Amino acid sequence: MMAPVSDAIRPLRITALAGGVGGARFLRGLLNHLAAAQDPVRRDARVTVISNTADDITLHGLRISPDLDSVMYTLGGGIDEVRGWGRAEESSGVAAELAVYGAEPSWFTLGDKDIATHLVRTRMLAEGATLSQVTARLCERWQPGVRLLPMTDDVVETHVDLAGPDGSTRRVHFQEWWVRLHAAVPALAIEPVGAAAATPAPGVLEAVRDADVVVLPPSNPVVSIGTILQVPGIRDALAATAAPVVGVSPVIGGAPVRGMADACLAAIGVPTTAAAVAGLYADFLDGWLVAEEDEPPVRAGLHVRRRPLLMSDPRATADLAGAALDLALELVDAERAA
Amino acid sequence: MMAPVSDAIRPLRITALAGGVGGARFLRGLLNHLAAAQDPVRRDARVTVISNTADDITLHGLRISPDLDSVMYTLGGGIDEVRGWGRAEESSGVAAELAVYGAEPSWFTLGDKDIATHLVRTRMLAEGATLSQVTARLCERWQPGVRLLPMTDDVVETHVDLAGPDGSTRRVHFQEWWVRLHAAVPALAIEPVGAAAATPAPGVLEAVRDADVVVLPPSNPVVSIGTILQVPGIRDALAATAAPVVGVSPVIGGAPVRGMADACLAAIGVPTTAAAVAGLYADFLDGWLVAEEDEPPVRAGLHVRRRPLLMSDPRATADLAGAALDLALELVDAERAA
Repeated sequence: MMAPVSDAIRPLRITALAGGVGGARFLRGLLNHLAAAQDPVRRDARVTVISNTADDITLHGLRISPDLDSVMYTLGGGIDEVRGWGRAEESSGVAAELAVYGAEPSWFTLGDKDIATHLVRTRMLAEGATLSQVTARLCERWQPGVRLLPMTDDVVETHVDLAGPDGSTRRVHFQEWWVRLHAAVPALAIEPVGAAAATPAPGVLEAVRDADVVVLPPSNPVVSIGTILQVPGIRDALAATAAPVVGVSPVIGGAPVRGMADACLAAIGVPTTAAAVAGLYADFLDGWLVAEEDEPPVRAGLHVRRRPLLMSDPRATADLAGAALDLALELVDAERAA
Repeated sequence: MMAPVSDAIRPLRITALAGGVGGARFLRGLLNHLAAAQDPVRRDARVTVISNTADDITLHGLRISPDLDSVMYTLGGGIDEVRGWGRAEESSGVAAELAVYGAEPSWFTLGDKDIATHLVRTRMLAEGATLSQVTARLCERWQPGVRLLPMTDDVVETHVDLAGPDGSTRRVHFQEWWVRLHAAVPALAIEPVGAAAATPAPGVLEAVRDADVVVLPPSNPVVSIGTILQVPGIRDALAATAAPVVGVSPVIGGAPVRGMADACLAAIGVPTTAAAVAGLYADFLDGWLVAEEDEPPVRAGLHVRRRPLLMSDPRATADLAGAALDLALELVDAERAA
């Protein structure tokens, strides 16, 4: 929700909610856009990222935070650009050996470099550190150029109910559905287990409250943005913040830009349309970027712009982030003029 | 100690106590000797190895059992033959990344393949398995050709007291003294912490009791064989067993065959001589192989043979193991004839 910003002259405080690959790419575009800006209000902007952690999983005893790592690696220059996740120039010496041992699960391959990250994380957590502290420590190395916060320091893991062959249902971790089954088996329900009892990580609510602009990248509205919203307090903070909340549709032409968001939307009974996704954010969304080919949502107080949404290259991605920021600042100005 | 063996016709049951690299090489020689034997008593012999676990250490959250792994890798065909420890054709992708993170300690480099072993072990232990169960699981893959038992399922870790610069002492894990400091700093004391309260692992006492022959490879008498002996019950079992206990001197010409055993002997005030090491085993040792150049110990009931002790190649190592077995069976025959 939007309210007047007292002083738009100082560098912007931008807060973004983000999932993994798509969110990370958008954020890199945002940083590129800001770095190239002439206006110090943008050029010197400070960005805080609230990361989904409900994809987190423990595999082979290692605590893995895929979305935090995707953002960290992407913004820190370590991402595998082809896959979009994991480390560049990665090897799989450990994974090959785990396979020989028959260690389960075998459907999630961990790269050697990536394992080092998980070892540092797992050890720190075992020694009593919070996920926030772990993330800050890892970011000392990666210098992602944003303040990267997990949505919560509590354990939240998205589980998915699948129809069994005999009419029963079986529950699997989101990663098993996503990575092993490629979300090809319809989900009956998707639940971020632990979210209802979780507390936002230190700084999360303040980052929403004190932001000049809140941005929603085109991340998965169910299992990325949606899980962040289920941590008590975050959704209320978005509705209460003085900053405009501007999002980018993850749906282009009735299909997810990337990934299998349609399978997630189907599980919660929501059509794969830009308008329907905006409807999931209705209580706090002020601005929405949709593709030319999509039907824009019509709702009082929601400002929609049609823009090219494909993050096809760094330039297009930076332009998309710039367009989101343009809309947000336009809303700030309109509010100030009112 | 020795007592009559009722029936030496059936395949031998051989039990060996072993440390890491030297013990593993000797055991490989023993298996090679047995495999090449014409006599089914030797050819079909079954070997049980009681492994030192006091070198074990937790690094980067991974539980590492260097001696168990050295035996397992060496007998299973996975050892790095040049270094004598760790995996062949090893890579260090994880370690390189841990170094970039500044993860401590940096003085113990874990190879990628090796890390897979530690991941399997650490996870199983965290899930409630005993070290015996973990070792059995790992050996399913490695098929070392012996029954490999940890000396105990309890945590025992050898710590070493070193003189500090200001006259104070500081205590470090054995691995730090051995690997980081190369045992160049004199040890004031060496203590297998936890040994006194430890229980022999399942099968250990029975393996000593029911053996036809007990063999001590030329492993470190202080931090390998010595720590095994400090697990309550094992030393008594060696003294009580009907089997002859035959050892191979780890000292040749007044110097350790390998490693820095002299530094360990100095710490407990024992000279680096073949005779002095035999003295450490005086209460249970029946036979002792020493090198030509060493003074043989003289003790009633101790049968000493001078043999080439250098494990310079597989053939020499097999011959050495065969000589130990020859002496043991000679003692069995003498006892039977008496």
